[in-house]
Amino acid sequence: MNEDLKVFSAGANNALTQEICDCIGIPLSQLEISRFSNDNLFVQVKESVREKDVFVVQSLTQPASENIMALMLTLDALRSASARRITAVIPYYSYARSDKKDAPRISIAGRLIADLLKTAGADRLLTMDLHADSVHGFFSMPVDHLTAIPTLCDYFSQRLDLSQVVAVATDAGGAKRVGRFANRLDIPMAFIDKRRISDSDVEQGLVVGEVEGKDAIVFDDEISTGSTLITTVRTLKKAGVEKIYAGATHPVLCGNAVANLKTADVTEIVVSNTVHISEDKLFPKLKVLSMASLFSRAILRIHTGESVSALFK
Amino acid sequence: MNEDLKVFSAGANNALTQEICDCIGIPLSQLEISRFSNDNLFVQVKESVREKDVFVVQSLTQPASENIMALMLTLDALRSASARRITAVIPYYSYARSDKKDAPRISIAGRLIADLLKTAGADRLLTMDLHADSVHGFFSMPVDHLTAIPTLCDYFSQRLDLSQVVAVATDAGGAKRVGRFANRLDIPMAFIDKRRISDSDVEQGLVVGEVEGKDAIVFDDEISTGSTLITTVRTLKKAGVEKIYAGATHPVLCGNAVANLKTADVTEIVVSNTVHISEDKLFPKLKVLSMASLFSRAILRIHTGESVSALFK
Amino acid sequence: MNEDLKVFSAGANNALTQEICDCIGIPLSQLEISRFSNDNLFVQVKESVREKDVFVVQSLTQPASENIMALMLTLDALRSASARRITAVIPYYSYARSDKKDAPRISIAGRLIADLLKTAGADRLLTMDLHADSVHGFFSMPVDHLTAIPTLCDYFSQRLDLSQVVAVATDAGGAKRVGRFANRLDIPMAFIDKRRISDSDVEQGLVVGEVEGKDAIVFDDEISTGSTLITTVRTLKKAGVEKIYAGATHPVLCGNAVANLKTADVTEIVVSNTVHISEDKLFPKLKVLSMASLFSRAILRIHTGESVSALFK
Amino acid sequence: MNEDLKVFSAGANNALTQEICDCIGIPLSQLEISRFSNDNLFVQVKESVREKDVFVVQSLTQPASENIMALMLTLDALRSASARRITAVIPYYSYARSDKKDAPRISIAGRLIADLLKTAGADRLLTMDLHADSVHGFFSMPVDHLTAIPTLCDYFSQRLDLSQVVAVATDAGGAKRVGRFANRLDIPMAFIDKRRISDSDVEQGLVVGEVEGKDAIVFDDEISTGSTLITTVRTLKKAGVEKIYAGATHPVLCGNAVANLKTADVTEIVVSNTVHISEDKLFPKLKVLSMASLFSRAILRIHTGESVSALFK
Amino acid sequence: MNEDLKVFSAGANNALTQEICDCIGIPLSQLEISRFSNDNLFVQVKESVREKDVFVVQSLTQPASENIMALMLTLDALRSASARRITAVIPYYSYARSDKKDAPRISIAGRLIADLLKTAGADRLLTMDLHADSVHGFFSMPVDHLTAIPTLCDYFSQRLDLSQVVAVATDAGGAKRVGRFANRLDIPMAFIDKRRISDSDVEQGLVVGEVEGKDAIVFDDEISTGSTLITTVRTLKKAGVEKIYAGATHPVLCGNAVANLKTADVTEIVVSNTVHISEDKLFPKLKVLSMASLFSRAILRIHTGESVSALFK
Amino acid sequence: MNEDLKVFSAGANNALTQEICDCIGIPLSQLEISRFSNDNLFVQVKESVREKDVFVVQSLTQPASENIMALMLTLDALRSASARRITAVIPYYSYARSDKKDAPRISIAGRLIADLLKTAGADRLLTMDLHADSVHGFFSMPVDHLTAIPTLCDYFSQRLDLSQVVAVATDAGGAKRVGRFANRLDIPMAFIDKRRISDSDVEQGLVVGEVEGKDAIVFDDEISTGSTLITTVRTLKKAGVEKIYAGATHPVLCGNAVANLKTADVTEIVVSNTVHISEDKLFPKLKVLSMASLFSRAILRIHTGESVSALFK
Repeated sequence: MNEDLKVFSAGANNALTQEICDCIGIPLSQLEISRFSNDNLFVQVKESVREKDVFVVQSLTQPASENIMALMLTLDALRSASARRITAVIPYYSYARSDKKDAPRISIAGRLIADLLKTAGADRLLTMDLHADSVHGFFSMPVDHLTAIPTLCDYFSQRLDLSQVVAVATDAGGAKRVGRFANRLDIPMAFIDKRRISDSDVEQGLVVGEVEGKDAIVFDDEISTGSTLITTVRTLKKAGVEKIYAGATHPVLCGNAVANLKTADVTEIVVSNTVHISEDKLFPKLKVLSMASLFSRAILRIHTGESVSALFK
Repeated sequence: MNEDLKVFSAGANNALTQEICDCIGIPLSQLEISRFSNDNLFVQVKESVREKDVFVVQSLTQPASENIMALMLTLDALRSASARRITAVIPYYSYARSDKKDAPRISIAGRLIADLLKTAGADRLLTMDLHADSVHGFFSMPVDHLTAIPTLCDYFSQRLDLSQVVAVATDAGGAKRVGRFANRLDIPMAFIDKRRISDSDVEQGLVVGEVEGKDAIVFDDEISTGSTLITTVRTLKKAGVEKIYAGATHPVLCGNAVANLKTADVTEIVVSNTVHISEDKLFPKLKVLSMASLFSRAILRIHTGESVSALFK
Repeated sequence: MNEDLKVFSAGANNALTQEICDCIGIPLSQLEISRFSNDNLFVQVKESVREKDVFVVQSLTQPASENIMALMLTLDALRSASARRITAVIPYYSYARSDKKDAPRISIAGRLIADLLKTAGADRLLTMDLHADSVHGFFSMPVDHLTAIPTLCDYFSQRLDLSQVVAVATDAGGAKRVGRFANRLDIPMAFIDKRRISDSDVEQGLVVGEVEGKDAIVFDDEISTGSTLITTVRTLKKAGVEKIYAGATHPVLCGNAVANLKTADVTEIVVSNTVHISEDKLFPKLKVLSMASLFSRAILRIHTGESVSALFK
Repeated sequence: MNEDLKVFSAGANNALTQEICDCIGIPLSQLEISRFSNDNLFVQVKESVREKDVFVVQSLTQPASENIMALMLTLDALRSASARRITAVIPYYSYARSDKKDAPRISIAGRLIADLLKTAGADRLLTMDLHADSVHGFFSMPVDHLTAIPTLCDYFSQRLDLSQVVAVATDAGGAKRVGRFANRLDIPMAFIDKRRISDSDVEQGLVVGEVEGKDAIVFDDEISTGSTLITTVRTLKKAGVEKIYAGATHPVLCGNAVANLKTADVTEIVVSNTVHISEDKLFPKLKVLSMASLFSRAILRIHTGESVSALFK
Repeated sequence: MNEDLKVFSAGANNALTQEICDCIGIPLSQLEISRFSNDNLFVQVKESVREKDVFVVQSLTQPASENIMALMLTLDALRSASARRITAVIPYYSYARSDKKDAPRISIAGRLIADLLKTAGADRLLTMDLHADSVHGFFSMPVDHLTAIPTLCDYFSQRLDLSQVVAVATDAGGAKRVGRFANRLDIPMAFIDKRRISDSDVEQGLVVGEVEGKDAIVFDDEISTGSTLITTVRTLKKAGVEKIYAGATHPVLCGNAVANLKTADVTEIVVSNTVHISEDKLFPKLKVLSMASLFSRAILRIHTGESVSALFK
Repeated sequence: MNEDLKVFSAGANNALTQEICDCIGIPLSQLEISRFSNDNLFVQVKESVREKDVFVVQSLTQPASENIMALMLTLDALRSASARRITAVIPYYSYARSDKKDAPRISIAGRLIADLLKTAGADRLLTMDLHADSVHGFFSMPVDHLTAIPTLCDYFSQRLDLSQVVAVATDAGGAKRVGRFANRLDIPMAFIDKRRISDSDVEQGLVVGEVEGKDAIVFDDEISTGSTLITTVRTLKKAGVEKIYAGATHPVLCGNAVANLKTADVTEIVVSNTVHISEDKLFPKLKVLSMASLFSRAILRIHTGESVSALFK
């Protein structure tokens, strides 16, 4: 059944891809990515993919432009090598953040990248926790959109006494996502209303909702530099919150994120492995939940034509 | 300058389109929409549009399928009649609500309609207050996205003492929109956290944020049956809110909306005219602000190649 | 063999679709079509269609715009739900009548709808007795074009003594179609030459061909309001025709068609069930021949990759 | 006004194109068509066409494949040479005859060529008297469809006493076209009902309509080998027709057409010059009406953005 | 395994195609190509191809335009007859010579034809020894690019003592191709540097590289009129070359090629059968190596999804 | 005339772009390129481009992936900001080197990038000295292909006594390009025949052509690491060449190129400024000829619709 299934890594998630292949019980397929002296990338697929059902795993993480180009060259090489079907598996589709035109004359890059991936040869997309649900609609190919939220909820509900916990969104735009999270855990919610104070650039965060004397889980789709989380922690502490936890799907952890989070007043930070975290970035308070099993089951269901939505029933 | 500019109405916004033409100072261009005995629609453009810069105004309001088909037949007729450029002006793009896949095996119709409009011949879109900003990214043509929020804000700030007013979102998903509204008026905000109570279908609304003893403006993108607004009003009253106002861009007002809103405990409901409201649906508490001037200025700027974003500076 | 074959009805031909499924020996697949309060349609496919060979039956009958939109939303939902192949089965493709540009600045809607169906996700079309053969060429996807003519001919040849029968076209444009019908029955033909009398709107019908003292079968692709048929009957009667029969593939039967046909001087009217006729519209002189068996055989042959043209050998 | 208008001939209609340019008052633009030793065609546009409004005249006449290839190479050369707009002017679109699928597994070549012309770079089409009106719908680009019928009618009405003339179609499929012709001349019509006699290949022609003792104009869209016309003439003579005239837009005149027509019992044959007739093929009974003026007026109107349909009011 | 594999000839390579079918062990599939009286081509596929894996063999040889049109009509007929996959097998893609813009305002016809073949319905291409490797990149479909060079090398290495042989390119542009050929045979190379002598049209050929006293193999991709080869032979003879051999993949052999080559001072001319050579053109010094086996193995590997590049390991 | 002409730099060629604008006499248009914390690029066009004729200059130089992404985001932003026409000006299209499939299962990236640029919004391309002429055919948009060869030739012919000079290609693949160069200077040519010595990885270079006692100009399209040039210099020196010059359009100069070239036995290295060379990389033997004037004239001609090929007459 799985003999014509092939899973490649285009470089950004080697460990996760290996883990996915182990779950499925197939070897990781081989790809060579190198670089010409003029800095052009070169991709060679190292095994025949004719009439195969091919999946390429690649998060659009740092170095993002390189990873996108490597993915597109891989998709094109697979297509011209006569793969039967090509699914781009993008655990962290970073450009989903560019999902609207909130300034004049910018690109809605989330849509542009979707179109480029199609031009490059992708037949379908498998992704996780897009920044906004409607980014799904940027793609003109079938999309399977997984979520890490149930796994994160399970983790928290097994470890915490939820009776005194409130879920907190870092801004009004995150209220919807946190609403879903809070609903699943059956806990109340709050959010930070950010306001720019006139005549200065200082942003003030007001807590909307009741948090005093409670524990809080700050929930977001990604943790990037960590500064949003750290500011939120400070605001919550001032508002009388006791213990603070954080949850997020995508641990981007760029810049001084690790250094800052290590010292932040947070009891535990729970993330998934959609973004590869190198050994040296790991720290005790950071808990990483693997999505390999979930991705492997989704890939198998896509391969065999079974319902993917059934995974979340 | 405006001699090769033509503005048509495809039937859903005849009054607004006439008003737009009056603002621009051109006559409304003529179109015939009729129906064959087999219920097929027939559209004939009644004047030459060769090499003209053509705008067709059509909100996707009830009867929505008819209005979409009439719009598409018009676009196709204009294209094959050699119009130089065709802009679909859709003040209320109702299908923007279908912007994600929140159930298995459904259409993201907001994207589908965007693709259909392109197939039918639209070169660009001019629209207002899409349900989600990212719906902009569903279109593969240039989009000018107007907003009624500044006009609505101006209306409220001229009439109300805002010192005791809070802006309220009817659910977590609306928090972002209301955040923008509240920011502009420099007032605090709150929202209703809706929860389904286990073992029943009853939905409970919890107010997140401080509202007691204040006046409230319930703000949303559209008022459809009005039931969400009426439930919110009840919840706010229980929470001790004094006077309640409502603001929304799109007055869909379907079903028993008018009857219910007339008797609701709301002081004033302020909407725009992106959706045509027939004479018999008007009632004293309903204030309709015309968007004709804004649309006419946007059309002129598109026609002459001036910045549209400058309208909102 | 048929386990990955699924047949849906998008609402316009529920009875015919059920009959087709019965012929094939599979259950009718389930689809939910509903409506939001803002009049937008909502379609949900109720069973997994991943990698299935899917057929959606939908005639473009009254309410035509609703039925087209429902079909397109269904096609899009199926495609994004990863159906392997999607065939639109449109027994009555009403817009085929809009097949030319006989007035300035109109849409050739038969082509537009063909393009829209492709955009919405149709991979192939299965249809019957298009108004003009060349409408086939409007589609950029493979088309299987069935015909009810042999079934109708068989019915007439089994019931009538054809030695005194002439086939009659209602106008010059129908001469080709009736020629084929007459050829198959090996009977002579005639047609009505319609002329507009100068200085008035009255249209005069002249019989071209010999009909006096004979019986006649008036043959057309569809019967809509019935007024063309009734005028033809009067003209034929004046010209000395004895008994008159009528045959047509598509019983659109709109407006006062049923009332008028009941009292017309026609012995029998024979049609197919490509258009659903509600119980209350049936009357004794109207004979409905089911196309379910023919459609089921075509669907099976498409599914298994056998020749469809062989059905008509 | 006409300085950025350029008209080329791709070889099949050099004389007509020169005449069109004379009517417009511009020089014929220069193109070189040659052939490599491996029989590949080579086209070079001999003058700059950047940002020009370009028209290429080419009927798809014998040698048809060569002429189509020369047209496509010209379109592609013009596009890559940055022409602003390219209109294919195809006075005789021969492949319009392949407009349906009347045998299994054939190409609807009228549609295929339409798609190929678009791929090659045509932005619009200007053509005349397509075999079927609906062939217009095969093109996804704007089409201006001229007709020679009014010119032919004028010619006949000025020369003949029409009181005893009947218009005759050579088969049932031509009845519609002849109906239009007869209507315009206000004369009655008839047609030949062709039947294949069982157990033999002989085809029998029955005259449907009254022709005895009258003069007849046999009207068709094209005269190819002339055999259809000659057979029709014989059938009409047997049926007692006096003088016979023939009219057609496209004088294909292939095979022995000229030899046969010279000796046929036809008083005059009136055609247009959409197909180039070499000097040696001309004969006294053949009257050729030039379409150059009509085409030149259409080209000018397309160029300046005036209504083309107004030409036929 | 091969039951759903079908191989057609579109007329230009009937013998080669039959030989390919014999190698595979399947009958040649049947196609009818005929011509209407108006010189339009007509193609009918004579057997069902529904869901079959279809290959159409057609070199773009003289008459090139006819052969291209026949190929495109065949592709379109196969597509609309529901073939599962269509591979155009073009042993000699003559238009590859039009691979650049070396004069203003010409078509890069090698790219245009690639786009036209896609529009006509080709899903993939199988070809041999394209004039330039980069012509591969003109196609937006998967391409398998075979080469006759190993077969030609084998032939020469088995027959000649290579120790005194030099490979010669007929111009600088061919140096790369000959380099590959020389490398494989492990012999030195030279080329003719053609220069136009000022103030005249005479072209002078200078031998670059050492050839005196050696034997030479003049190697090229095609032999067209043979004049390039004959000029090269004369230049080499003047430069003191002993015996001269010639090798080329494509024996176009047009014009007086055969007459000239018969009398040229060449010991043997070795070519493949990608271009059909009629019996009367064969002559003793011409050695034709069949590519049927190579094409049949490539077709089988494409059909079964095995690596085609492995054929050349 | 130039008021609706705008020229942007997307970052890789700021100095060249400024120089181009100075030649034209317009200010450089403003663009902001920045980076989100998750390494995603962000581009904002800082001035209105509605209905403008826009040119974006960007060589695909190191960091190549970043520069490609920045270019594509800029193109998309310009398109959605309603630019009338967008020309990508890519002085050095590095991926042109990936122009063929010389290994199995690789991407012909030169074609892929061409398709991606189209998807991103480019309407035309202006480029210089593509690695192979046929890369032009990878683009489905109009391409203007400039060359630095005349400028380089002029430089050499003004400075050197050409009577004892031979032009040398670094391998057989470059023979064609050097042939054109040598022809223009009317000097003889030679090339290096590279052979891999069996049983080792060492490559041996044989000089084909007469060079002993002469001066040589080694000519290539680009100088990347310089190692090819340095190896060629050594081979030529061994073969008795006196003075050695080098010429190339694109000074990629990556890795240790500068250090190595400084000490190489080359009298002068002449390049253009299609690739930006930072101050610290300049050295006395390196002569940089500016292409700004040539690009500015091409841009003006494209803008005003004059012939670009005329620049090279």
